[in-house]
Amino acid sequence: MPQNVCIALDAMGGDHGAPVVVAGADISLERHPDTEFVMIGCRAILEPLLAERPALRAVSRIIHTDVAVKMDDKPSQALRHGRWKSSMWVAIDGVKKGDADVAISAGNTGALMAMAKFHLKTMAGIDRPAIAALWPTLRGESIVLDVGATIGADAKHLVDLAVMGSAMARVLFDLERPTVGLLNIGVEEVKGLEEVRQAGHILRQTGHPDLDYVGFVEGDDIGKGTVDVVVTEGFAGNIALKTAEGTAKQLAEYLRSAMSRTLSARIGFLFARKAFAAVRDKMDPRKVNGGVFLGLNGLVIKSHGGADAEGFAAAIDLGYDMVRYKLRARISEMLGQHAAE
Amino acid sequence: MPQNVCIALDAMGGDHGAPVVVAGADISLERHPDTEFVMIGCRAILEPLLAERPALRAVSRIIHTDVAVKMDDKPSQALRHGRWKSSMWVAIDGVKKGDADVAISAGNTGALMAMAKFHLKTMAGIDRPAIAALWPTLRGESIVLDVGATIGADAKHLVDLAVMGSAMARVLFDLERPTVGLLNIGVEEVKGLEEVRQAGHILRQTGHPDLDYVGFVEGDDIGKGTVDVVVTEGFAGNIALKTAEGTAKQLAEYLRSAMSRTLSARIGFLFARKAFAAVRDKMDPRKVNGGVFLGLNGLVIKSHGGADAEGFAAAIDLGYDMVRYKLRARISEMLGQHAAE
Repeated sequence: MPQNVCIALDAMGGDHGAPVVVAGADISLERHPDTEFVMIGCRAILEPLLAERPALRAVSRIIHTDVAVKMDDKPSQALRHGRWKSSMWVAIDGVKKGDADVAISAGNTGALMAMAKFHLKTMAGIDRPAIAALWPTLRGESIVLDVGATIGADAKHLVDLAVMGSAMARVLFDLERPTVGLLNIGVEEVKGLEEVRQAGHILRQTGHPDLDYVGFVEGDDIGKGTVDVVVTEGFAGNIALKTAEGTAKQLAEYLRSAMSRTLSARIGFLFARKAFAAVRDKMDPRKVNGGVFLGLNGLVIKSHGGADAEGFAAAIDLGYDMVRYKLRARISEMLGQHAAE
Repeated sequence: MPQNVCIALDAMGGDHGAPVVVAGADISLERHPDTEFVMIGCRAILEPLLAERPALRAVSRIIHTDVAVKMDDKPSQALRHGRWKSSMWVAIDGVKKGDADVAISAGNTGALMAMAKFHLKTMAGIDRPAIAALWPTLRGESIVLDVGATIGADAKHLVDLAVMGSAMARVLFDLERPTVGLLNIGVEEVKGLEEVRQAGHILRQTGHPDLDYVGFVEGDDIGKGTVDVVVTEGFAGNIALKTAEGTAKQLAEYLRSAMSRTLSARIGFLFARKAFAAVRDKMDPRKVNGGVFLGLNGLVIKSHGGADAEGFAAAIDLGYDMVRYKLRARISEMLGQHAAE
């Protein structure tokens, strides 16, 4: 019987704070009873929330903190005021000390990344961390990275992203050799960015045994699920992610408005409501909540700030899977192989 | 009574070639009877297509060419083999000589941009051209540029894009002072790219009378229609555009599949079919077909290569509007004011 998975939760992060964090942990615990939690935040708020949930209470430990990083704190402010003492820092510190296997926060992304980088440091061989997103596609799910940790990337960093993303795909999708594409545009004379072309060249030359580099992909390939892992630098990646979110909301709004406009449409909606629910379910951002910080000496997951309990539970599930399937060891292993070639 | 608008058509471009170009011209002519066409391509193909359409025949002139740029020609190949003699070149040449007000092609984007740049040259004060796309939003339509003409942009080029995009918004949306946002990401310490921040600073300082700079926007603001003009460099812009297209197709596919899965859903679909048609209509890429090349001494519009007659007609309509409302003069005027400040 393997050890329990221990998850450190920044209980004060996100738009809704502790109630959503605790409720989310309760949902996730039901799915993975071999979980323990360290909940970091205001004890006076957390105790009554846990008192209502005896099963969760039994596997949770509270660490009291007075300070919470605000959603609009700049990363430098957060580091200045929140180091050592904020709920976000103490969650990361749990991972650093080996008390927890993964830290999860719905707080301010910039602050979380700054603290995680400062405290955990990047893995040997990795210069800069990345944020990986799970992206629902027509074929299932893909991993897209970097969706906003750092702006710009040289060829070496893009290759690192390919390796880290592939390790994640192997763990999460149980694939031997995930397919990898470099996000590019097909319009210019010399197709796309020089760095992207160089990275493609390196990936093709090295022929890594644990990933299958298939070439350049364009923006519309992400939703098609053309490859398991889509690699890009953080500026374009973040814009792609947010643009897709915006487009999905826009179409949902078109549909909602069209379906309520006439009596006939409303009747149609009633008959087809299960089908609509299925589509809503597929589009549900809560189902794929969680940006995974890659390239650090410790696992940190960022939940969407606006996530509800179901959404936060999805981020916890993701953290659980990553720990259970040893994401970090896999990355080190693949980086080692890669460096040895 | 103003002069007719004269439109040069590359009749051999696109996936479907002359039949779609001629049929599209016929549709657009019905909407704007004060149009004349110069159709450039193989006379033996064009004559019979025009013979079936006497009204269109009466306002069209054919220029015969033997050479057509292929969809997969590299821009350099296209320039080498197609200069002076390809249908694409001759269409652009018509604009250059003043025989036509605008050139429209559904051919190879890279080749069209290379030829247009080579032959028409950039406008005084503009270093590099851009491609502007019309983007359907929850508020109506916005203009997004650059969607792939050039990769990377310094602050000056971003400001040029803001000015050119605003001129286009004034013309197309009939706005006095369009709102403008710089596409950025909100994750990093120093928010986003240095160039983007500098461009924002310049736009805020100069306080251009013909545009209302509102600040940074993120990817999800595009679909919301937060601003009339979204400014970004061509790599991120192209990825945003293609990602949105991919997401729209993905959701349409989810919906199609959900609506055919059960009898109840199929009945619902029948009742709501008008509503579905309305949504399909709003999402219809044919309705907003046409990438406008900005910053050149002459108007060129790129239609989607796969456009059907209705789609190609939309690109012609767009060209017509741009000419009627004097886009190029507006840009020069605004650039002049901007430089004078």
